[in-house]
Amino acid sequence: MNFSSKLLQRAVDEFGRLPGIGNKTALRLVLHLLKQPDTDVQRFTEALNNLKEHIKHCQVCFNISDDTICEICSAIKRDKSTICVVEDTRDVMAIENTNQYHGVYHVLGGLISPMDGIGPADLKIEALINRIRQENVNEVILALSATMEGDTTIFYLYRKLKDFHVQISTIARGIAFGGELEYVDEVTLGRSITTRVPYERHVG
Amino acid sequence: MNFSSKLLQRAVDEFGRLPGIGNKTALRLVLHLLKQPDTDVQRFTEALNNLKEHIKHCQVCFNISDDTICEICSAIKRDKSTICVVEDTRDVMAIENTNQYHGVYHVLGGLISPMDGIGPADLKIEALINRIRQENVNEVILALSATMEGDTTIFYLYRKLKDFHVQISTIARGIAFGGELEYVDEVTLGRSITTRVPYERHVG
Repeated sequence: MNFSSKLLQRAVDEFGRLPGIGNKTALRLVLHLLKQPDTDVQRFTEALNNLKEHIKHCQVCFNISDDTICEICSAIKRDKSTICVVEDTRDVMAIENTNQYHGVYHVLGGLISPMDGIGPADLKIEALINRIRQENVNEVILALSATMEGDTTIFYLYRKLKDFHVQISTIARGIAFGGELEYVDEVTLGRSITTRVPYERHVG
Repeated sequence: MNFSSKLLQRAVDEFGRLPGIGNKTALRLVLHLLKQPDTDVQRFTEALNNLKEHIKHCQVCFNISDDTICEICSAIKRDKSTICVVEDTRDVMAIENTNQYHGVYHVLGGLISPMDGIGPADLKIEALINRIRQENVNEVILALSATMEGDTTIFYLYRKLKDFHVQISTIARGIAFGGELEYVDEVTLGRSITTRVPYERHVG
């Protein structure tokens, strides 16, 4: 594109670096921001800078959090004996939106994916095992995406966890193969948590 | 959505305020930025703040510019006697990308649209008339969108400018390059027949 302004070009380039934002969309967004009052743009950039500066990961479940222990882990009414293992923060939010789950979470930070060079050591699996060892955990729900990587990770976790005295379950496969957890509608997702099945039945 | 973090929520809300960005896309973008190095996010927010602080509008053509007079208006080799009137900066960039135009521009900053409460006084029409009055202008090209608002604005400008000694032209309306005749709408096809051009001019 042919920019008459270097300042404009730089802002468009930065927006264009975001995933799914092409050059034309970036330009549209930047021109929109240009039309807004100064305070709006300041608020926008401050929100991003504050986020980047002050955001933490919960020391217990590794969810994104404002404090060292997240709201869910520190809530008294949450059932600490049930841990729902998810890939990332978006999955926590998706499950929270169903209002069907009252346990706590464990955010792996990814899925085992040899193709992308992500092995078990890159995920918070050791921390999960330590939680099960140290806390009074009855059940571990593996709520991972119904993809190759999700299934690989579930299988790996099952082998690691099966010797502990915990029930291991997966969310019910009401979800189509290849479905990404975050895009599933709330009813299906909620139902797939309430009808979760023991892993033995899942493979058998 | 159910956020575990206020900082995250605030950033997502800000992104979600941009046109065409829904809540899920906003979350995806914010989580992407969270994964980037601090310097990348700083560069992103700095580019926006710099843009907002230092951007100007060219005093001659009202295009977005880094200086008080834009690059195009201050270029010696541009033909100052031809003014191309456009709606906004994006149109300037689109025309510049064609490499077919060597005159200068005049950015109206919108189109006349009674439905949106935009009248002639909200646009840079007086400034355009002053340019024609004071400068040595031979031709004014009205390069506005082929919409109701575009046509209204063209008609208004034509009435305002017709008493000056300038050639007033509009960009050709017709079938787009590569367009299949059978899929072209009736208005466009009808107009492209009534405004047909001699073959010599078509190729020349």
